[in-house]
Amino acid sequence: MAAAGYEVWSVDCSLVEPPASAPWLAGQVRAEFSAVHEWWDRCAGADVVIHLASSTVPATASADPVLDVQVNLVGNLRLLQALRDKRTSAGGRPSLLFVSSGGAVYGRPQSVPLAENHPTMPMGAYGVTKLAVEHHLRIEEATHGLAYRVLRLSNPYGEWQRPQGVQGVIAVFAHRALHGLPVDVWGDGSVVRDFVYASDVGRAFVAAARHEGESRVFNVGGGQGYSVNHIIGTLEQLLGHSVERRVLAARPFDPPINVLDIQRAQAELHWRPTVAFEDGVARTLDWLRTLP
Amino acid sequence: MAAAGYEVWSVDCSLVEPPASAPWLAGQVRAEFSAVHEWWDRCAGADVVIHLASSTVPATASADPVLDVQVNLVGNLRLLQALRDKRTSAGGRPSLLFVSSGGAVYGRPQSVPLAENHPTMPMGAYGVTKLAVEHHLRIEEATHGLAYRVLRLSNPYGEWQRPQGVQGVIAVFAHRALHGLPVDVWGDGSVVRDFVYASDVGRAFVAAARHEGESRVFNVGGGQGYSVNHIIGTLEQLLGHSVERRVLAARPFDPPINVLDIQRAQAELHWRPTVAFEDGVARTLDWLRTLP
Repeated sequence: MAAAGYEVWSVDCSLVEPPASAPWLAGQVRAEFSAVHEWWDRCAGADVVIHLASSTVPATASADPVLDVQVNLVGNLRLLQALRDKRTSAGGRPSLLFVSSGGAVYGRPQSVPLAENHPTMPMGAYGVTKLAVEHHLRIEEATHGLAYRVLRLSNPYGEWQRPQGVQGVIAVFAHRALHGLPVDVWGDGSVVRDFVYASDVGRAFVAAARHEGESRVFNVGGGQGYSVNHIIGTLEQLLGHSVERRVLAARPFDPPINVLDIQRAQAELHWRPTVAFEDGVARTLDWLRTLP
Repeated sequence: MAAAGYEVWSVDCSLVEPPASAPWLAGQVRAEFSAVHEWWDRCAGADVVIHLASSTVPATASADPVLDVQVNLVGNLRLLQALRDKRTSAGGRPSLLFVSSGGAVYGRPQSVPLAENHPTMPMGAYGVTKLAVEHHLRIEEATHGLAYRVLRLSNPYGEWQRPQGVQGVIAVFAHRALHGLPVDVWGDGSVVRDFVYASDVGRAFVAAARHEGESRVFNVGGGQGYSVNHIIGTLEQLLGHSVERRVLAARPFDPPINVLDIQRAQAELHWRPTVAFEDGVARTLDWLRTLP
């Protein structure tokens, strides 16, 4: 987004320490996303809010759905109310890009690739909350004129993804493979997922921020699925050595395949992913090598 | 349900004073619906919970969506957790029938009548919360074996509907017409809605409680739509005098028509409405005449 001319601020309840190699960051504010009064003036307001904040991941939302609702759904409702007041005083700014989950809102795919009009039958609390926020955004536009777009991301990966995180199979596998550690595979490794490179996600943000058409919801994915086995094979090829697998029992709640249909984003946002999977994994490895 | 052999208890956060003419009620407990420990033992547990509780109506949910989420969505999550514990100790009981809203979960109809697989695009916070509960019920079945059915009701009417309520156009209009008072009509009275008589709703509860098929969500409606003008005409015919209208500006958020497709309930619950609209309105008037 910085490359496209935006001054990019980060608002987060925890401060990230950006290395010198993060030249895109104009500044950062430590604040809860919903406490707009705490961050609005400190970053001189905003034309576009890219809303990536969540206190949960799918597993933690399922473990405590009440907390997920209280922090994330209620937090989002408070955000919408606060932005309503800001729009009045700031001449219509900001518009809101809400990052939703292409892996969670559809539920078990009835067909792949999953288009935006596939039924939304989430199989976890995380997806229910994401979907409820999407509905409230539509209502907020109809009743109070919020300009918004929803981006249903598949699995973003690439530089800056923490290899010790609870999400992000490519970062975790790449980090472990790089250090000669075994990787955990649930089942036979045939499960297929959709991955989209971080810089392509940033380009989708730019395209969505400038979009003026009728659609409000866009899938943002890599355009193609890759199995867990393919990820490991790609790492082995790039690293030039084999990667040890620790095989665990298949998890029955993992759908065998989840790939997003990105035709709408291609046609209406004029966006398409540009980083090929092998190149993205190679860039991920290069970045991981720079970590202490 | 009493006529079908059930011992019917009422659990409500406010006590109703049932006149002697409510012979179906075995007893009542004053408690919050989600505080299962407060009511379970006092009504000797339950085989089936018919969950009709909500602290909001569509207008109040829109006015304070945060409160709607905190009381109703969080309350429902707590209910599911508490029932999980009860099922363990009570041999699988109870099953849950959740009363959802056929008027709120679909949003603006893309076609009528609205079948259960019509996209769910609620246009108000009330419908978003109802839909989120439906999703959580599906997840609760998949993860913890809850036996449940969702009944998406259209507009129930008939005896026992309070004529001073904020909902229930037939009760309100019938009460006012009976007492020679004018009725409020927003727009030209052409708006069409779906009404289902109270006793037919009770029969749908019985059918859903006994259902063993695959479907989880059923529309429960009158099978046909009636305009506001038709309601007033029916009252005029039954009362033998004209009803004064107070005409107000049409409300832009009122969809012109909302009628539920009830073929699934007919085919799978072997249920269909039995009380014709004119008979239902007549019975409503008869009951209103017994009020002091």
